[in-house]
Amino acid sequence: MTKATQYVHVEKPFHFRRGGVLQSMDIAYETWGTLNSGRSNAVMILTGISPSAHAASNELDEEEGWWEPMLGPGKPIDTNQHFVVCINSLGSCKGSTGPASIDPKTGEPYRLSFPEITIWDVAAAAQTVLDHLQINQLRAVVGPSMGGMSCLAWLHQNPGSARHFLGISTAACAEPFSIAIRSLQREAIVTDPNWHDGQYTAESWPENGMRLARKLGMISYRSAAEWRQRFGRKRQQRMKPRLYGMNYAVESYLENAARKFVPHYDPCCYVYLSRAMDWFDLEEECSDLAEALAPIQLQSACVIGVESDILFPLHQQKSIVDGLQANQINAALVTLPSKQGHDAFLVDYDRFKPAVARYFKAVMETES
Amino acid sequence: MTKATQYVHVEKPFHFRRGGVLQSMDIAYETWGTLNSGRSNAVMILTGISPSAHAASNELDEEEGWWEPMLGPGKPIDTNQHFVVCINSLGSCKGSTGPASIDPKTGEPYRLSFPEITIWDVAAAAQTVLDHLQINQLRAVVGPSMGGMSCLAWLHQNPGSARHFLGISTAACAEPFSIAIRSLQREAIVTDPNWHDGQYTAESWPENGMRLARKLGMISYRSAAEWRQRFGRKRQQRMKPRLYGMNYAVESYLENAARKFVPHYDPCCYVYLSRAMDWFDLEEECSDLAEALAPIQLQSACVIGVESDILFPLHQQKSIVDGLQANQINAALVTLPSKQGHDAFLVDYDRFKPAVARYFKAVMETES
Repeated sequence: MTKATQYVHVEKPFHFRRGGVLQSMDIAYETWGTLNSGRSNAVMILTGISPSAHAASNELDEEEGWWEPMLGPGKPIDTNQHFVVCINSLGSCKGSTGPASIDPKTGEPYRLSFPEITIWDVAAAAQTVLDHLQINQLRAVVGPSMGGMSCLAWLHQNPGSARHFLGISTAACAEPFSIAIRSLQREAIVTDPNWHDGQYTAESWPENGMRLARKLGMISYRSAAEWRQRFGRKRQQRMKPRLYGMNYAVESYLENAARKFVPHYDPCCYVYLSRAMDWFDLEEECSDLAEALAPIQLQSACVIGVESDILFPLHQQKSIVDGLQANQINAALVTLPSKQGHDAFLVDYDRFKPAVARYFKAVMETES
Repeated sequence: MTKATQYVHVEKPFHFRRGGVLQSMDIAYETWGTLNSGRSNAVMILTGISPSAHAASNELDEEEGWWEPMLGPGKPIDTNQHFVVCINSLGSCKGSTGPASIDPKTGEPYRLSFPEITIWDVAAAAQTVLDHLQINQLRAVVGPSMGGMSCLAWLHQNPGSARHFLGISTAACAEPFSIAIRSLQREAIVTDPNWHDGQYTAESWPENGMRLARKLGMISYRSAAEWRQRFGRKRQQRMKPRLYGMNYAVESYLENAARKFVPHYDPCCYVYLSRAMDWFDLEEECSDLAEALAPIQLQSACVIGVESDILFPLHQQKSIVDGLQANQINAALVTLPSKQGHDAFLVDYDRFKPAVARYFKAVMETES
């Protein structure tokens, strides 16, 4: 991936929750800061569906990361204080083994022969990095969006292995509106004539399906209020308005977002991780979320949500906080009035930086 | 269409606002009730993008209409009191001339050779029915969704030709979020390999694109809150959850909605009317909406909106009412707390029937 990417090569069978096994795999990660001698200052970041492990620039890779303003010396997640590990999800195409990786048995990409992935598997794969780094207990786990789901699964699998948790615009289960959005994204991809049951090639990429999927993603990541202010009814390039195609600024915006994404994300990986989110339901075999969260041990938790988020709506962050509090965990809900919807944690830094900094300040006070 | 459908055959050139002309056309409509001797009790209904003129059953066609509970003897739009005319939009494929109609010059469907349609053209075409019926002034015009846009255009084109206006879940212009949704629907259709620049055939229908478009439509017509309550995380048919396809109840619901729609709506007509909504902007050449509404003359107006509507959000209904009031028109906003989003006027009759009945009761009081 980049010069800063490191890999854990796992050379023992990894069993997937829904069946299937990998005999070996790689999990990509990056780190910032220095692990202290007690190995007690580590912070793990698990990511949303699309980012790589390159959350921020560092000495080895000066390119801006996907969370550049949030992570670094003196920043809200202060790498002078924490040893930060960001882990690329199992199943992604950004370094970790996934459906786009070469199956050593065949010499071809796994594609649909890859085992079905759940959020629980993503969490278990992240743990292999912590094992490798010999970190027994994290100071904190941080997860925005799908990453928050992965954190909840990891906290469930590893009780007592983290002292603090920061969840951002995330959820303990997928709701039908979000399932519907993702279902349509997958349908656009797998009905692209180039999909070929996953046997697409670089020359016949399911580009159209991916473009539709990404545009629908953008619609669900942002908000009507933001676009009203930002685009209004602005026309594009004074072109004659046409029956279809680029006419309004918002249409060009979506097109640009798709063009930036489509060549760099594998369609199979997208389908797998998208469905993993649908399947995630922490309380599946419990009577309620409080019971489902009971195994989790933490000194504190903070969950940040955004009022305009339609994909991971605010009441989902509130229910995590309620469930943790029901288990006597010191948990707080932070509600931000951002207009930028689900994506606010990636763009509305004026609101997110202080909120994240405040939580880490509180964390450091309990640590001292 | 049905036995109850009537047609106005217009045998003179119809000029489109964006250019182009039809030498002749047909506009389909249905009626209920009896026109009084003063020809003063007529109510015109203009429709959303997909319905036909068959709003309700009548003697000639007993099949339920798309607004059956709303329209008939003793119902909120009481056909014992009003002579109701529902007009199928120009450009639709439900009886009125549109891109799916046969071009007499070629003997083939117009498809993309059809002139570009605006909401202003839909309104002007509706007027041909009123001319034919020799109705000079309507008691009221009623328009839900796109139909409300068409009513506003018609009221603008025909000042003083209606005494009352009931707009429902409608808007005076398209906002970028709705444009984005519709843009994606059109893109799904026109990138379907069967689209062939509009030269699809019954044997190679752009079915996949239409299915995606309809499903995205459903996502924008309903609300997350409704689906949370209605579907939750319910699985479908106890099938083994699959990577893609039908797994959750909400996915099967979307699939059923698409199957019911796709064979019965022409892709070209959909693209044309969808874009017509994007283009609609009553205040385009005005400094504000109040100025844009100034030509409209009415004795009263009522605009009903739904809190959970994401496609035609409540503030758009409010701005119509504000604009009418600024022009000294007795206008009221009615806000309904329905969970069923934009579609509430078609399904939440417990709330909509009393609201519509109340307005027509007020109308009849001013009429007596």
